[in-house]
Amino acid sequence: MTVHNEALRDHACLIVHGPDQPGLVAAVTGLITRHKANIVSLDQYSDNPEGGAFFQRVVFHRPNLTAAFEEIENDIAKTLEPYGMTWRLTDQSVPKRMAVLASTSDHCLLDLLWRHRRGELPVSIPMVISNHTNMAEDVRSFGIPFFHVPSQGPDKSAAEAEIVKLLAGNVDFVVLARYMQILSENFIDDVAVPVINIHHSFLPAFIGAGPYRKAKERGVKLIGATSHYVTKDLDEGPIIEQDVVRVTHADSAADLQRRGADVERAVLSRAVLWHAQDRVIRHGNHTVVF
Amino acid sequence: MTVHNEALRDHACLIVHGPDQPGLVAAVTGLITRHKANIVSLDQYSDNPEGGAFFQRVVFHRPNLTAAFEEIENDIAKTLEPYGMTWRLTDQSVPKRMAVLASTSDHCLLDLLWRHRRGELPVSIPMVISNHTNMAEDVRSFGIPFFHVPSQGPDKSAAEAEIVKLLAGNVDFVVLARYMQILSENFIDDVAVPVINIHHSFLPAFIGAGPYRKAKERGVKLIGATSHYVTKDLDEGPIIEQDVVRVTHADSAADLQRRGADVERAVLSRAVLWHAQDRVIRHGNHTVVF
Amino acid sequence: MTVHNEALRDHACLIVHGPDQPGLVAAVTGLITRHKANIVSLDQYSDNPEGGAFFQRVVFHRPNLTAAFEEIENDIAKTLEPYGMTWRLTDQSVPKRMAVLASTSDHCLLDLLWRHRRGELPVSIPMVISNHTNMAEDVRSFGIPFFHVPSQGPDKSAAEAEIVKLLAGNVDFVVLARYMQILSENFIDDVAVPVINIHHSFLPAFIGAGPYRKAKERGVKLIGATSHYVTKDLDEGPIIEQDVVRVTHADSAADLQRRGADVERAVLSRAVLWHAQDRVIRHGNHTVVF
Amino acid sequence: MTVHNEALRDHACLIVHGPDQPGLVAAVTGLITRHKANIVSLDQYSDNPEGGAFFQRVVFHRPNLTAAFEEIENDIAKTLEPYGMTWRLTDQSVPKRMAVLASTSDHCLLDLLWRHRRGELPVSIPMVISNHTNMAEDVRSFGIPFFHVPSQGPDKSAAEAEIVKLLAGNVDFVVLARYMQILSENFIDDVAVPVINIHHSFLPAFIGAGPYRKAKERGVKLIGATSHYVTKDLDEGPIIEQDVVRVTHADSAADLQRRGADVERAVLSRAVLWHAQDRVIRHGNHTVVF
Repeated sequence: MTVHNEALRDHACLIVHGPDQPGLVAAVTGLITRHKANIVSLDQYSDNPEGGAFFQRVVFHRPNLTAAFEEIENDIAKTLEPYGMTWRLTDQSVPKRMAVLASTSDHCLLDLLWRHRRGELPVSIPMVISNHTNMAEDVRSFGIPFFHVPSQGPDKSAAEAEIVKLLAGNVDFVVLARYMQILSENFIDDVAVPVINIHHSFLPAFIGAGPYRKAKERGVKLIGATSHYVTKDLDEGPIIEQDVVRVTHADSAADLQRRGADVERAVLSRAVLWHAQDRVIRHGNHTVVF
Repeated sequence: MTVHNEALRDHACLIVHGPDQPGLVAAVTGLITRHKANIVSLDQYSDNPEGGAFFQRVVFHRPNLTAAFEEIENDIAKTLEPYGMTWRLTDQSVPKRMAVLASTSDHCLLDLLWRHRRGELPVSIPMVISNHTNMAEDVRSFGIPFFHVPSQGPDKSAAEAEIVKLLAGNVDFVVLARYMQILSENFIDDVAVPVINIHHSFLPAFIGAGPYRKAKERGVKLIGATSHYVTKDLDEGPIIEQDVVRVTHADSAADLQRRGADVERAVLSRAVLWHAQDRVIRHGNHTVVF
Repeated sequence: MTVHNEALRDHACLIVHGPDQPGLVAAVTGLITRHKANIVSLDQYSDNPEGGAFFQRVVFHRPNLTAAFEEIENDIAKTLEPYGMTWRLTDQSVPKRMAVLASTSDHCLLDLLWRHRRGELPVSIPMVISNHTNMAEDVRSFGIPFFHVPSQGPDKSAAEAEIVKLLAGNVDFVVLARYMQILSENFIDDVAVPVINIHHSFLPAFIGAGPYRKAKERGVKLIGATSHYVTKDLDEGPIIEQDVVRVTHADSAADLQRRGADVERAVLSRAVLWHAQDRVIRHGNHTVVF
Repeated sequence: MTVHNEALRDHACLIVHGPDQPGLVAAVTGLITRHKANIVSLDQYSDNPEGGAFFQRVVFHRPNLTAAFEEIENDIAKTLEPYGMTWRLTDQSVPKRMAVLASTSDHCLLDLLWRHRRGELPVSIPMVISNHTNMAEDVRSFGIPFFHVPSQGPDKSAAEAEIVKLLAGNVDFVVLARYMQILSENFIDDVAVPVINIHHSFLPAFIGAGPYRKAKERGVKLIGATSHYVTKDLDEGPIIEQDVVRVTHADSAADLQRRGADVERAVLSRAVLWHAQDRVIRHGNHTVVF
């Protein structure tokens, strides 16, 4: 059973993405008018009006949306077919189902669970999966199922298969909240929903282990975090959000890690919010965030 | 003779503002399609889809814009009349004419002149007016006319009249770049174009003289600046842009002033850029910035 | 029984504050050398070397600190007496005892409890007091006592007396984590330990009820928070920390409140950390933060 | 003839740097007391009180500093000899002599010249050297000599030799204000004074040509700049200052470059100020900035 968000009842979000061409916006807005819907917000961007890529996000209000949903979808398909556009229509009152994968660190995981409880994230959280057990009690105190999938030895395929089985059909996207296992290319294929990661430190600097120690040695004056979609190029997927905090020579590597944890959880929570609101459109190796 | 910006040749910007109502976006975008124009960017916002205010900025490309300009204007008038909307259409290749009023401080004035010379600001600068003469040589070295209008004694009406006479018909907006004279309500009426101010310090804090000294005494940890349109409520007009910088107890009042000057010039230059690009729509006592 | 922090064993913090005068630093550092202690960090500031105020924070390591503590105190007293300085010596391994007062909002309270559990805050938390009961279970899940002191009717004196009784002798400072009751001057006197508050919005703007609604109406582009010591001038006490986040016209008052909650908890947690580390020295109505 | 800064008359800055050991601070402060000087500010840092490196910056006021300078230096040498410390004493009223090397870009160069003219930078500027001539008139309008040293062909040794000859004995440090020539290792040796660079973009990301285009393609959400000392490891020297600005998908590569120019000039001017004030101590490949 899906949890519904009353404030967004009868609100739909239409994402349109493809080659820019004249008449596109008029076609979409004409369509919405035809269905007696009222545009709540509209964002669009073209990376080059002459033959570039076009991106649009329209939120509209349409009384009795559920009853009309299929008809609107059919009309969109027919209207946008001549333009060769990719599109998707979502009912904004239906929260996306989000799984969280975590390890021992709590800062990103707890921040997501807490924001969800406060009503800040329009998602449902059917499960948290971890390769450790230390967060089980905390997760369950939020009323959320916790599954322990240990990941030992060099061969991770059994653990990955178990995770895929838990996720299959149950979630719309996955968040790696400081999940410290490297995922195989197969996993990304098999999970078949978007996977959002939070990268400790400012990409592409200080890749690998001990990033805060390396940052300390290098004497950086800023510490950052990057949230991105996971692709087969580990840590190189399309960036959703980034931020930094200022540090000084007086901050120890432990201080940097603490400050980094703050910026990590802030960046990840914004990336998750925007994804859940259908604000992020992927294009090649970058994103448009409306 | 107007200086034209080749990159923006045949680009028009349409601003639409008024009561939100269904069909509005479709009406505007249909109109643009009708005139064989291609939408380059479109931003819109409604502060309440049920009976709120609607704001839209559309930039479109239309070959031979100049020839078709009047016809498009007529069509916009006819199309939007039933909706009761305020609108304006501007040719983006025609830079707005900007006058700068300054006193002895150079940081905001020079930053504007330098950005203009670099091609960062789509404006022409027909004149700089100051109640002091110290900046005359600097201003003229940028090839810009400098007029000295001294402002002595309690009665400023003669000086204001002289300024209004210099500006009348020659400028599209006025920037107060740390102009340290209080302008009368009559001046605001008589000048009859938008006037942008930069306020030293974070509104509404530390109003009046010696703001940096007051901020130092209060031990603030942030120093800010606010750029706003001037209204009859001095320093209380619609905010265009704000920013802050971090300071500490070790910063003297002079340091705060120096840091403040940096944030003032940054904030003012952004406000001027956005105004020049028709990105700012005033509504009541606030702004929508697209 | 006090919880001890092993990493800070045998570390003492000396705060010296008073009229600046020649020889002061040499006197203090000579004293530390005399006691065979090693200076770990030393910060000092003088707001005017000619007759201004002097502030110093020295952290030093001294094996067997506990045994020598009283002797060092006596020597400090004797050494600083001729200079007329205020001073205090603290054992850094002894966490300060912090009480948290909260109402219904959870963001500041939970952030403090999490950080404490993660080991980020060198404090113990003997109690949380609230005029509501909704956070009782959450607080107790951290193993921290929760006391409900309802505050009804115009006369708050009974509730305040009950709070003072709970706090008396048990805590070293009090944090108002969005505690929505106005405290009387008597309370501040009776509680007799520092009280830290977090102010919703950037002081002194938007004082009173509905600050985020007022900020929305005013069209501000930044939302801030200020943490300060509580004095009899409500919300006007010495500022410890401030920060802001950027917002736009598209943010609703609810969005501003959500963004505001993030900056409030970040600012409060920094203020609490710095207070707990003896980094904040009050002087008149401002602070020196080392 | 050296230009003197009256506000800093009789102020000296002592930098001490070396192995941390007990008694060091007492030795230094005792020495200052002995010379009847008054400590204006004192900063120190130890990266590890047990056998780490010690850094100290003391500014003190000593009437008739010039007369006593040599005697104080001798006493410092004698006092610090047993500790094996590196040290230097500077008269704060004597501005450091700064040469600026530039190419065609004006933003960093002009910002330094303006700030110098405003009295914000405690330096003198005996010369600007460029491999282009476009900035000659601007530079000379500030009353500063401009030397054109063209740099053509693959062999830069003649040009470098000419620059070294111009600089030799005339400057205390060199600023590369977007100087677009790669300097040889020999040059760094021969110039024999600190060289400060501003790196376009956030190190180590997007090294090489076209950094803003690369950043655009990668879809970054932040644009940064790094100022560092030049070492033989080009662009990898000790970082003095870094900062970022937020950008979006809607910013073109040209917008990123414009925003980047703003952050570059801000970061460089802070690095130059701090170096000029003897606030930066190099240690290995990082810096301590007091």
